[in-house]
Amino acid sequence: MTSLRHIGRSERPARDLYLDAARECLLDVGWRRTTLTEVARRSGVSRMTIYRAWPDMPTLLGDLMTREWGELVAATLAAEPTDDDPARALAHALVAVTRALRDNEVFVRLLELDPDLLLPYLLARRGRSQQAIIDLLAAQVTAGQATGGIRAGDPTAIARSVVLAAHGFVLSAQTMVGDGVEPDDLDAELALLVERGLRP
Amino acid sequence: MTSLRHIGRSERPARDLYLDAARECLLDVGWRRTTLTEVARRSGVSRMTIYRAWPDMPTLLGDLMTREWGELVAATLAAEPTDDDPARALAHALVAVTRALRDNEVFVRLLELDPDLLLPYLLARRGRSQQAIIDLLAAQVTAGQATGGIRAGDPTAIARSVVLAAHGFVLSAQTMVGDGVEPDDLDAELALLVERGLRP
Repeated sequence: MTSLRHIGRSERPARDLYLDAARECLLDVGWRRTTLTEVARRSGVSRMTIYRAWPDMPTLLGDLMTREWGELVAATLAAEPTDDDPARALAHALVAVTRALRDNEVFVRLLELDPDLLLPYLLARRGRSQQAIIDLLAAQVTAGQATGGIRAGDPTAIARSVVLAAHGFVLSAQTMVGDGVEPDDLDAELALLVERGLRP
Repeated sequence: MTSLRHIGRSERPARDLYLDAARECLLDVGWRRTTLTEVARRSGVSRMTIYRAWPDMPTLLGDLMTREWGELVAATLAAEPTDDDPARALAHALVAVTRALRDNEVFVRLLELDPDLLLPYLLARRGRSQQAIIDLLAAQVTAGQATGGIRAGDPTAIARSVVLAAHGFVLSAQTMVGDGVEPDDLDAELALLVERGLRP
């Protein structure tokens, strides 16, 4: 849990403790088998307490994913070295987040047991975390354009496109390894595509 | 059905007629509600005849998709203008196939009614058509490297990476349109990423 690790359980807001319990359930049995009753039991509170925070399980999962990916992105970007070249910096940050997502235990467990829960975010709408990443990238593109390090173009279209380009590397990289091709080779290709694609 | 349109129904191999019937079922009611009995009824043959060709519905769907995407790729590439620049030619062919898939009625219907049927191809293994596309692209990369029009690198890793980069544009482009961003803008970004990514 990265930056939250040093905070003792009792010091965390109640809402985070409930999300921690929901997260444990997801990792233990998968989301489809997780019940509000079990989240309440693990949190040591009543069903009604959980129910007042999240009227249904999809809302709870949405908040759990938003917290998880938000922390993941923040921790990943904080660990990236500073880089004066905005195209290279953006490409490397995108690949680092792609890798971190692929290795994230909540993400892995969802893909393993409940992959259909991710379909709405692929087919119907951007999730909150996806949108946050796009906003962050668009701001980096705008800043890079101002200093001449990134080519002209609508920053929103560019940011959404590089996120779309990364989708396959997050979800399907493992279907493309083998015959001498390692995940790192694929990631290096993604970094190169994006870095070159952003150059003036 | 592109190149097959001019062939009268009676001249087509029986196997193709059964696949035509299965395709009609998929478009009418979706795959989950399609039965072997209905495919046989529409084909005007016995259940046993269909069953001998495809022992189960997943095998039938696999063959139907392989035929559909195979025809789509062949027709799309045949319609592409010749281009002496191998990096640009490959990028434009990739985007053309991406667009054609996104507009294909079988693909659209699957995403609409049975998107979970596509999950194995995202999470577990390459489909036959994906592999055929990768083989085609890898051969183009190799040829382009020989003439100096495409940069060095393992052609298989490069081909798999550009297919991974296109995944999001096939599946999720519609989640990224809006606020002045059109599908064409996203496709132009993909073409640019891939073309620049392939240059020496």
